[in-house]
Amino acid sequence: MISFENDYIAGAHPLILQRFVETNMESLTGYGADGYCESAKEKIKKACECQDAQVEFLVGGTQTNAIVISTMLHDYEGVIAASTGHISTHEAGAIEFTGHEVLEIPGENGKIGADSLKVFIDNFYADANHEHMVFPGMVYVSHPTEYGTLYTKNELKKISEVCHSYDIPLYLDGARLGYGLMSRESDLTLPDIAQLCDVFYIGGTKVGALCGEAVVFTKNNKPKYFMTSVKKRGALLAKGRLLGIQFDTLFTDNLYFEISRHAIEMAEKLKNLFHEKGFHFYLESPTNQQFIILENTQMEKLKEKVRFSFWEKYDENHTVVRFATSWSTTEEDINMLNQL
Amino acid sequence: MISFENDYIAGAHPLILQRFVETNMESLTGYGADGYCESAKEKIKKACECQDAQVEFLVGGTQTNAIVISTMLHDYEGVIAASTGHISTHEAGAIEFTGHEVLEIPGENGKIGADSLKVFIDNFYADANHEHMVFPGMVYVSHPTEYGTLYTKNELKKISEVCHSYDIPLYLDGARLGYGLMSRESDLTLPDIAQLCDVFYIGGTKVGALCGEAVVFTKNNKPKYFMTSVKKRGALLAKGRLLGIQFDTLFTDNLYFEISRHAIEMAEKLKNLFHEKGFHFYLESPTNQQFIILENTQMEKLKEKVRFSFWEKYDENHTVVRFATSWSTTEEDINMLNQL
Amino acid sequence: MISFENDYIAGAHPLILQRFVETNMESLTGYGADGYCESAKEKIKKACECQDAQVEFLVGGTQTNAIVISTMLHDYEGVIAASTGHISTHEAGAIEFTGHEVLEIPGENGKIGADSLKVFIDNFYADANHEHMVFPGMVYVSHPTEYGTLYTKNELKKISEVCHSYDIPLYLDGARLGYGLMSRESDLTLPDIAQLCDVFYIGGTKVGALCGEAVVFTKNNKPKYFMTSVKKRGALLAKGRLLGIQFDTLFTDNLYFEISRHAIEMAEKLKNLFHEKGFHFYLESPTNQQFIILENTQMEKLKEKVRFSFWEKYDENHTVVRFATSWSTTEEDINMLNQL
Amino acid sequence: MISFENDYIAGAHPLILQRFVETNMESLTGYGADGYCESAKEKIKKACECQDAQVEFLVGGTQTNAIVISTMLHDYEGVIAASTGHISTHEAGAIEFTGHEVLEIPGENGKIGADSLKVFIDNFYADANHEHMVFPGMVYVSHPTEYGTLYTKNELKKISEVCHSYDIPLYLDGARLGYGLMSRESDLTLPDIAQLCDVFYIGGTKVGALCGEAVVFTKNNKPKYFMTSVKKRGALLAKGRLLGIQFDTLFTDNLYFEISRHAIEMAEKLKNLFHEKGFHFYLESPTNQQFIILENTQMEKLKEKVRFSFWEKYDENHTVVRFATSWSTTEEDINMLNQL
Repeated sequence: MISFENDYIAGAHPLILQRFVETNMESLTGYGADGYCESAKEKIKKACECQDAQVEFLVGGTQTNAIVISTMLHDYEGVIAASTGHISTHEAGAIEFTGHEVLEIPGENGKIGADSLKVFIDNFYADANHEHMVFPGMVYVSHPTEYGTLYTKNELKKISEVCHSYDIPLYLDGARLGYGLMSRESDLTLPDIAQLCDVFYIGGTKVGALCGEAVVFTKNNKPKYFMTSVKKRGALLAKGRLLGIQFDTLFTDNLYFEISRHAIEMAEKLKNLFHEKGFHFYLESPTNQQFIILENTQMEKLKEKVRFSFWEKYDENHTVVRFATSWSTTEEDINMLNQL
Repeated sequence: MISFENDYIAGAHPLILQRFVETNMESLTGYGADGYCESAKEKIKKACECQDAQVEFLVGGTQTNAIVISTMLHDYEGVIAASTGHISTHEAGAIEFTGHEVLEIPGENGKIGADSLKVFIDNFYADANHEHMVFPGMVYVSHPTEYGTLYTKNELKKISEVCHSYDIPLYLDGARLGYGLMSRESDLTLPDIAQLCDVFYIGGTKVGALCGEAVVFTKNNKPKYFMTSVKKRGALLAKGRLLGIQFDTLFTDNLYFEISRHAIEMAEKLKNLFHEKGFHFYLESPTNQQFIILENTQMEKLKEKVRFSFWEKYDENHTVVRFATSWSTTEEDINMLNQL
Repeated sequence: MISFENDYIAGAHPLILQRFVETNMESLTGYGADGYCESAKEKIKKACECQDAQVEFLVGGTQTNAIVISTMLHDYEGVIAASTGHISTHEAGAIEFTGHEVLEIPGENGKIGADSLKVFIDNFYADANHEHMVFPGMVYVSHPTEYGTLYTKNELKKISEVCHSYDIPLYLDGARLGYGLMSRESDLTLPDIAQLCDVFYIGGTKVGALCGEAVVFTKNNKPKYFMTSVKKRGALLAKGRLLGIQFDTLFTDNLYFEISRHAIEMAEKLKNLFHEKGFHFYLESPTNQQFIILENTQMEKLKEKVRFSFWEKYDENHTVVRFATSWSTTEEDINMLNQL
Repeated sequence: MISFENDYIAGAHPLILQRFVETNMESLTGYGADGYCESAKEKIKKACECQDAQVEFLVGGTQTNAIVISTMLHDYEGVIAASTGHISTHEAGAIEFTGHEVLEIPGENGKIGADSLKVFIDNFYADANHEHMVFPGMVYVSHPTEYGTLYTKNELKKISEVCHSYDIPLYLDGARLGYGLMSRESDLTLPDIAQLCDVFYIGGTKVGALCGEAVVFTKNNKPKYFMTSVKKRGALLAKGRLLGIQFDTLFTDNLYFEISRHAIEMAEKLKNLFHEKGFHFYLESPTNQQFIILENTQMEKLKEKVRFSFWEKYDENHTVVRFATSWSTTEEDINMLNQL
């Protein structure tokens, strides 16, 4: 059955597997000190146009969020996020496990606004009892958001300005960053993000890798002895090559961007197809995740022919479902969907 | 200057100090194994009409919340609370420090409703991805709430029923429990609370003690080796007598209830006085905390003559302030307030 | 029955209770911002001859250790302590609860040596894999130790030098500090300790208070927003007066030192008495705790007449027991012991 | 340069990469619910001769230790381990990060003895103050140990009996389990281990996989909602296939055992070669890690020709170094070593 269930249904981009095979018997130093990690870091710094950046590889998104947030926050601080943010809802309390609160603020279609952010922080400091409260110590945004939406350059700039006016780092969760950067509606580039954010990660798991996320600290602000903190959280790989080779491949010859663009093209076709068929969209998403409102019996029927994922109940008779494309989606998948 | 700043401005009820003096040189075993702790526990069990209850003494409210919640939750669970709940806002992340999330749901005037609670839990289990989310593992209510409001017996019963239908314990934060029980509008008794809740605490700090809260486990559900968990959280007192003597005194000859009733009487006078003077109330509170909306210049003037506390900004020109009575408020305080 | 069970069998020094009574109905600001806390801090700074010191009050010893250590360590660090140290053995894992390891090194009679400390740290840095290990981030000593022994000024100076040569703070647990300072064998003064240590606490619970410890940060090194971190750990008292009044009294007219000296005098009498009776001492202690080796049947007999505490098994037929004096021990207690 | 630096210098066994390639474009459900994970679990249960076993896959060893230990311990418990155990020394405090202490007991050549284990636990319960201490809640052994040594069946049985007499689970860290099982000196089989231990893991990272460890709960004792606890610790892989395919391959046609046997054969040759050359062994290891004492100048010379790893300083002039073979070691590597 064809599947648009999510953007991690397939293995890795074939070039990655090819590089695994080619390099397999080389003797490499462990724990990320090998040449492939080194090379991948250099390529990422170049792509970010940020030669001072410090790049580290981790295995998955929740792990990355928990490690970045908990090593950058002070004891008395929490991280501000949209109430729909991945860290607020779907990480099983991974941030709280590190002893820090996620300070939820309302968002719109997954995005937070600079104004409501400023109001939240101002109110905190205006409260006479704020020393009894969790200090705002970081701002988390996801881009694309959990709803497939994107910040504009101007929106991210304003958020960045609010953060920096309070000396709070801005952290961008780029689990699907490629799909954001390659969206036709995006006016944000990777160097823009590196400039506006204090730390962010370039998602691999959902963009061509078997696993892996590349954290980029942009302001010479990598926490001291970060490797020890990573080990302490059980996240240090003995065979760092697993991550180094993947990111080295993804950032060679523009692969990361090209496969992301492909996923966007497939999403556009899927979107057109659904528009033509008269489906209702839950919201307008310019990236690889498309949210459709289905009448429940229609949904049950469709389920028999194609895989997609439940998003949320819309009303008694309707459900929001998600169709995701990815680097692995083929024209054939779209054609088959068209024929359903 | 007279003060209605909060309900912990004074020391301890004089009978407590007298008992400290009388028992001071007795050699007592440490860590809560002394006879005063034992006697206090018996009196509390009797007042709760719950002979199977297990009673433990802790020092303060935030400490009590963090210990009760973290020792009763499973690893994969969080605690549901109103977004205005003390654990949600004013405990500096103490629950998160123990590795657990506070799952905030909207409330009204500090109270949560059985219906919205049920919807929240139902939605959790309906979510196909709920194993990626924090499980609802306990429900937290404060009574009186942070806004001085009270649950009716029927409301608490319904909440209790929702909890128990999901096998989730109900925890009641009684930091100001005396003031709730003695309110003329309360139809909830201490035995009711013991019956409806799985665990709750009887606040001492704000009701006549120098410090101290009495946790009551009502369903033979005290966590195993609770004393070790208390020690692990730095909360075990060497001189357990400090808590035992206080609660033994408070639960002798109805003292806890009488001083609470006194505070309520003072609050009623204060309320009448403010009504007569035409002050606007932010909400209707039947307990010892009264919330008034003041025009800002009026507030500044009043500040010079009496102490009260900032609650929250109402609008550009108005502020919500709180006046609290307590066991230590005197008729004279009220009279002086009247003459301002 | 007379009791030498521990140094917290009695309530508080009567002057403390008297001050409680005298100040009881004063309206005071909460959370340690009252005048008694302020006054007590000033007196302690003066006694330490360290005007830049930052003083904070906490409730108990384990709580103090956990808070000081966890707010001063970096994420990747642990605290070095003797394997007999209180934090290593008898705090139920309170340090680990905050996410940090206690790095145990061997000691002698409760004391660690500067040389073995240096070897431990050197070995850490010499290990090629030390980034996979917990970094030594603080040194913990107790003074008097859990065995009643004392560091000499020279010994503490050498430990301090090792710490500072590695830029590691030295923390002294002074749960029984008064009894150390007033021992006839001590050449260490309170100002010496303030100078040699980066942080230490002056124990109140075991030296005349009902509860309470005074933490002294000596190098302008109090962690930022310490009050919020204290609250986060459930350790902030609403009625800060409970601690302020006690320490203000203890540091008025030399009371802390006088009652400590009294306990030492009682210990000397007890020691002489045991020597005369031909008891065997487990070790030579110059402070208020005395460790005696008793033949087991002799121990059982003695138990019927006087309270003391089990320390450890010595061999099949003998047990080490502890007799503790304190500020509350009377000549009469000693006389009665003599007549057993 | 030939390398005996460790047992994770190479990538994955070629059959694993082949299976990655063959299955790469299959659409699979995420988070470990795919058919390869299912198949791998069945094969492992069969190899363990334990059809009731519950198998879960995690990414690395430290992660596995932290997750297994922290989800199985009660709040008031810690885990007993040899002071040389991996969790005691080289995991950067990962266990403590979860709030639990590692209770270190002395071992010999990496092994703990049933007798000293029993003494430790007995002493704990004999201590009148043991409720102030961390309870022994689990026993951790590594097999092979960090020193390459092995428990005999009888030794493990005795340890298991001690554990079960106190109702404490026995956990075996099998990071190098294959090399233990295939040692000629081992009388322990995989089914023996499954029978004697309550939980253990079969190491993949060091035995042919790119990453991955298979946890086996043998007594129907997998913690409830384990997947949520794994997610909470940032350890849940979106592409569970990465682990499923690897373990499915390793447990097909005896691959895991055959490649382990090969490593043992290479170790035997290396051992003979070193014996012939008159090298001194630090200890007798029957597995893939060999520990040699080198004179320091000799070590420096050797370093120019072959990679090995520093283990520890032996004395001023000598160093203990480790040579490790693995599934990827070739006869040619050994021959080249012979010619140095």
